Formats: sequence, C-alpha cells, structure tokens
Amino acid sequence: MAVATSDLLASARAGDKRAIARLLTVVENDAPGAREILRETYPQAGGALVLGVTGPPGGGKSTLVSRLVAAYRERAPRVAVVAVDPSSPFSGGAILGDRIRMQDRFLDEGVFIRSMASRGHSGGLARTTARVVGVLDALGTDVVIVETVGVGQEEIEVVRVVDTVALVTVPGLGDDIQAIKAGVLEIADVLVVNKADRPGADETVRDLAQMLTLGPPRNAWKPPIVRTVAATGEGVDELVRAVDRHREWAASSGERERRRADAARVEVEALLRESLVRRLEERVGSERVRRAVERVASRAVDPYAAVEELLADP
Amino acid sequence: MAVATSDLLASARAGDKRAIARLLTVVENDAPGAREILRETYPQAGGALVLGVTGPPGGGKSTLVSRLVAAYRERAPRVAVVAVDPSSPFSGGAILGDRIRMQDRFLDEGVFIRSMASRGHSGGLARTTARVVGVLDALGTDVVIVETVGVGQEEIEVVRVVDTVALVTVPGLGDDIQAIKAGVLEIADVLVVNKADRPGADETVRDLAQMLTLGPPRNAWKPPIVRTVAATGEGVDELVRAVDRHREWAASSGERERRRADAARVEVEALLRESLVRRLEERVGSERVRRAVERVASRAVDPYAAVEELLADP
Repeated sequence: MAVATSDLLASARAGDKRAIARLLTVVENDAPGAREILRETYPQAGGALVLGVTGPPGGGKSTLVSRLVAAYRERAPRVAVVAVDPSSPFSGGAILGDRIRMQDRFLDEGVFIRSMASRGHSGGLARTTARVVGVLDALGTDVVIVETVGVGQEEIEVVRVVDTVALVTVPGLGDDIQAIKAGVLEIADVLVVNKADRPGADETVRDLAQMLTLGPPRNAWKPPIVRTVAATGEGVDELVRAVDRHREWAASSGERERRRADAARVEVEALLRESLVRRLEERVGSERVRRAVERVASRAVDPYAAVEELLADP
Repeated sequence: MAVATSDLLASARAGDKRAIARLLTVVENDAPGAREILRETYPQAGGALVLGVTGPPGGGKSTLVSRLVAAYRERAPRVAVVAVDPSSPFSGGAILGDRIRMQDRFLDEGVFIRSMASRGHSGGLARTTARVVGVLDALGTDVVIVETVGVGQEEIEVVRVVDTVALVTVPGLGDDIQAIKAGVLEIADVLVVNKADRPGADETVRDLAQMLTLGPPRNAWKPPIVRTVAATGEGVDELVRAVDRHREWAASSGERERRRADAARVEVEALLRESLVRRLEERVGSERVRRAVERVASRAVDPYAAVEELLADP
C-alpha cells in the first residue's frame, strides 16, 4: 500500500473530512488505490447503522434527512449522509437548493455529507454506493443515511445496500405516484407520511396500510407507518425509534445477515463478470470484440451467434 | 428450429396477435426457443419507426400514446405499443386504469399492445425491451412506441433502445420534478409540453428552452418543443411531424447508426459476461462461488481478493 493511502486512512479514521472525501473519490472512480482502500477497510465495516431514505420527489426527503441527522447526532459522534442524485450535468444546478439546505449541518464537525452522481459508475450506482457506505462505516461513522431522489428500479437497487429502508410519501399524491410507489413499497421497512399536517394525511396512512395488506406475504416484520412534519421536527423521534426497532428485529431474525449476503453475492458476481471480460479481451483482442459488435449492429449476425464465435476460438 | 416456432413466426408475420404475444413471451422470459426466435428475426429488424415516450408521472403519457397510435395508424397498417411499467405485484392493480384506456385501441386489428413488468428480466429491462422491440420490428410492425412510466436511470436505459425519444412534461410541476427531468432531458430528441391548455404552459416551454441552452453541447439536432393537449388531440400531428423530422435527421447524420451500434455493444457485452460466468461456474463449481460469497458477506475477505482466488485456481 502506498504511504499516501495509509496516511489518508489514518487521518480519515480520526475524522478528517478532507481525507474521507479523498478516499471516497478514489473508491467512487475506481482510481488507482481503490483496491488498497477496499482491502484495508472491508473487514472493518459492518458496525454502522445504515438507513436508506427514499420515495417520490416532492416528499420533503432532504428536510427530513436534516432532521434525522440532528436526531442521530444527539446520540452518536459521527453521522454521514450519502445523497444519490439523478444523473445529469443539469442536476448539479437543479438540486442545488436541497444541497444548500443540507449544508446547515456542515458546520457540525460530526456530520459528513457526500453527493453522488448517478451516472458513470462502472458496475452500477448501487455497487458504488455500497462501497462508499462500506468505507464510511469502516472509518468509524456511527450512522450512514443514504438518500435517493426518485423511485425507479435503480433507486430500489441502491437502497438494497442498506439495513433499513424508510419510504417517504406525502398526503395528496395522485394515482400516478401510487403506481410508482408500489415498486418500492415491497422493500420498505418503515413507511413515513411526511407533511402529515396537510389535509389527507389520514387517508394516506389508511391507503398505505391497505396496500401493505394487499402485497405479497411478508416475513415477520410488519412495516410501521410513522407520521412526520419534517419542517417542525414532529414525529422524527418516533421515526428514529421505528428504525431502531427494525434494526433490532433484523439483527435477531437473521434478516440483516440475509441482506448482507445478498449484497456480497451481487458484488462478487459483478467483479467476476468484469474480470472475466477483461481476460477475454486480453486473449482475443478488443479489436475482435469491436468487429463482433459492428456485425451485430448491422444485423449481419445475431448477438448470441457473435458471442459464440468470440468464445469458440481460443 | 422446432416446427412450432416456425409456425408461430409465420402466423406472427401475418399479423396474428396471439402468435406475436406467444413469441414475445418466449423472448421476454428467455424460455426455450428464444434463441431460435432471435436468430430468425434479428436480421429482419431495423425498418420500423421506434419512438420512446417518457417523462414524469402525471404527464398524461398514456392518453398521448393513444393519440399517437391513432395518428400513426392513419398512415401505417401495423402499430405496436410496448408499455414498460414499474415493477411490482401491486402495479398490476395500480396501473389498470391506464391499460384500460389503452384497450380502446385494442379493437383495432392493426394495433398490438404489450405490457412489460420491469423486474425479473435476466440481464436487465433495457435489454429485454430491446429484444421485444426488435422482434416486433422484424415481424412487420411499422411503428413501435415504447412508453415508460417514471424517470429514473432504468427508464433512461430503456429509451436508449429507441430511435427517437419524446420527453413529455406538463405545466406546473415543481422543482423536484425539474430535478428528475434533468437526467432525461439529455436524451430527449423532442420535448412535449402536454396539457398545454393549462395555466403556466408558456413558462414551461420557456424553462425547457432555457434548460436546453444550459445543457452540455449537443450535436446538430436541436430538440423542438411541441405543445399538445392529448385529451383533445391538439398538437399531436405536429408531434408526429417533429418525430419524422428527427428520424430523417438521425438517418442522414449517422446518429441512428451510432445509437444502434451502442445498443449492439451493450447487448454483446452483456451476453459475453453471462456466458463467461456460466463457463467459470461449470469449471470451478457453483459451490465454490457460493463459499466465496459467504466469506465476503462475513467480511472475512474483500470482494477483489475473493474473485482473484476464484480465477487463480483452474
């Protein structure tokens, strides 16, 4: 391991935010040194409370996350937020408002905030997020909150890396939002109705309760529905308690180990695929792969036949 | 090729919807026969107009798609819609309203509608969608409209398989929606402001025009902004003309070939990875892979080291 990396790790473990940020950048970009950082940190992770906060846009998630950060800071010295943003050169501007609100917490030495773009991660955003969370965990962060914007399949993959998923909705979203939410509802451990002082909160709670009964059979955990008003902080303590209860249940029931084994499987399989493709390209030459792609693109040959040809000839 | 498959292909080419549906089910599930269907159809695809319609929920996309189907049917005998829904056992109910509206068109023999769930596709939804579109194209469909619900990364991947992407927005969506939309804006070829009879339509058109100027430098195509009122059909003809103009530009500028080469590359690489992993598992045994995963899950070893061990020993 390069001396620079070992120095960075020591500083990061002591809580130096600059050192943490630099390590994460290396890991996020799979830059030289990423391998070493993962080797050093991987065995030390697993102790943090890792909470995912997801849900459709407009739910006030960022404000709620700020409140959660404050609540967790009361009982833990180091809290981190990993904000997973929709990918775009534009989004840097579009979500600036949210990030600025979050910076309120930046003045607190015990709070570390990381924004991640959702594109350009070799191997997928979920994997990169898992690595970033793992490194933060290994470096001594007590609580890591992963916040996603949006409710698509990718967000579902992202929150799979956390131990507890809080799904945030608000009263009065239309049918379309209900449809989107459905996909995420299955992976939610705690349901949050934010802006619960608005009209329609009771109906939303009732709708969610009903959707839970309609869903596929669940294991022993029945997701509680918590009402919050993030703007005032109302209900945030209850949410923290609900997350604690889920965490205890997950640890004692074996659910946590199951999720972590799932995440490990995804990671190992993805790395295996990458390594195998790299080896093949070294063997047959990337030029031959490129030509196969061209022939498929011009529909001279179907993809299966092209791949068979590449693999047949040693 | 099994006789059954060749019979199905003949019936499907003649426009038999049941035969088309059965072929697509085989391809979608990668069931026995999928290989043969792709081999037979792959070289014949590439002639259809393939249009993606995407955008945040609540934009009236389904109604607009119905209008587009009617418009395209006036000039083409066979039009298909591939509706990509958020994945969930729940969503079957939640989106039923949309699907029922679409069934209006089902009485028309020249219209074929396919709903796809967004989970459980080995190799990803985008690839499965590409295959379904390719088969419909090869079977003689003149126009294929791919409709996605939602605006996450997965939806961006899905619409990458089409030749022209129409992004549908409506007046009066908040900042949060703007942020989500940003990721999709980059891949939009035509921008649609639907429900353009609502207050705020001018502002939305202006905002979109400004976002286009803020974005990364584009190629020679400047996405037009079309106003529609899907409920009345207003603006639909103009949208069809805008799509035609983009299609002509894409064909003459080489953009279409570039996109198709991209799609081919993704497909070939994905198949390569699958085949290589299958071969490795046959060689080292899935039991050894499973044990490696367990060691990573318990953090006894990091993923890179586990994969190296698997690959080192023949």
